[in-house]
Amino acid sequence: MSERVNGRGKRAAAPAIEPTRLRAAAEIILGIDPSLRGTGYGVIRIGKSTPTALAHGTIGCPAAWPTTRCLAHIARSLRDLLKQYHPQACAVEGLFFAQNLRTAIVMGEARGAALAAIAETGIEIFEIAPRKVKQAIVGYGAAQKLAVAKMVQRMLQLSEPLPPDAADALALALAHAQSQSRYRLTGTKPI
Amino acid sequence: MSERVNGRGKRAAAPAIEPTRLRAAAEIILGIDPSLRGTGYGVIRIGKSTPTALAHGTIGCPAAWPTTRCLAHIARSLRDLLKQYHPQACAVEGLFFAQNLRTAIVMGEARGAALAAIAETGIEIFEIAPRKVKQAIVGYGAAQKLAVAKMVQRMLQLSEPLPPDAADALALALAHAQSQSRYRLTGTKPI
Repeated sequence: MSERVNGRGKRAAAPAIEPTRLRAAAEIILGIDPSLRGTGYGVIRIGKSTPTALAHGTIGCPAAWPTTRCLAHIARSLRDLLKQYHPQACAVEGLFFAQNLRTAIVMGEARGAALAAIAETGIEIFEIAPRKVKQAIVGYGAAQKLAVAKMVQRMLQLSEPLPPDAADALALALAHAQSQSRYRLTGTKPI
Repeated sequence: MSERVNGRGKRAAAPAIEPTRLRAAAEIILGIDPSLRGTGYGVIRIGKSTPTALAHGTIGCPAAWPTTRCLAHIARSLRDLLKQYHPQACAVEGLFFAQNLRTAIVMGEARGAALAAIAETGIEIFEIAPRKVKQAIVGYGAAQKLAVAKMVQRMLQLSEPLPPDAADALALALAHAQSQSRYRLTGTKPI
């Protein structure tokens, strides 16, 4: 059984960004792709011309670690990132894929640990549907992951190919940056 | 579609408590029943004769709050409880019920926020299957929730009936206390 799941249910159909959120664009944005064993993260700074990557990587948790140790490690690592880069907004996937109830719960646990740590610092968190991320980066919603990763690498003028988790996280941050522009207000919603 | 889900999958079939955990029983135990809008908690102290309830209640999050605010509130409230009561162990449900993938993810998020906050303080967290909790409290695994709540109230000599969330959390703490005894080593496993 495979099913696309909407983390927020019906609310995902709501208008993109609330009027009160239409203020100056965040200059530093954190994108995260939570997962128990490998949470991708990417921090970008929005410049007047091209955006730049300040940091990206994966918060890895070895298979031997018990779940609760992973959750604590995810929360602590993200808190360290926030302290170091002071992002003004965070972007996370809104629609995601779970094969069954057990994986959905494990994914939810990783996501909950990550979002709680970030929300506690008062940063606004936005969710973006994967299709919208692909649209924003590559131009169409059914783009393959590798095509997105390559375009992210080009947009951020990075010399090395990106690991998949980090590429997804940077793509989220870039897509959110784009949605904050006055002329592209669809795709991200505060959660 | 309804399905019983095991948060830890195959590992639930493993032997109950690892040999290294067989040390002196925790004196203060926190039980939690995580949920986005109403996380039940209960803190008990194990005495030589009867256990006593130090605190119990629900961490409530109004429906108007966005998800991330709830997750932050759950993490912060539990951290406050830990600071106040210094439990040596935490017990949480191991097998639980999710109606569909969306509810599984939301439940997972609440659980992740709670477990990360607790695990960060270094407290050991154990999971217990609901059937084992009922067995420990009422004597048989198919007992109704109300019967469990009434027995918890009697065991802790509380004058007032317990709200369901708090009763579940206290039942988890009591069941874990019982499983720590040398003679009843089944039912809880570190996660």
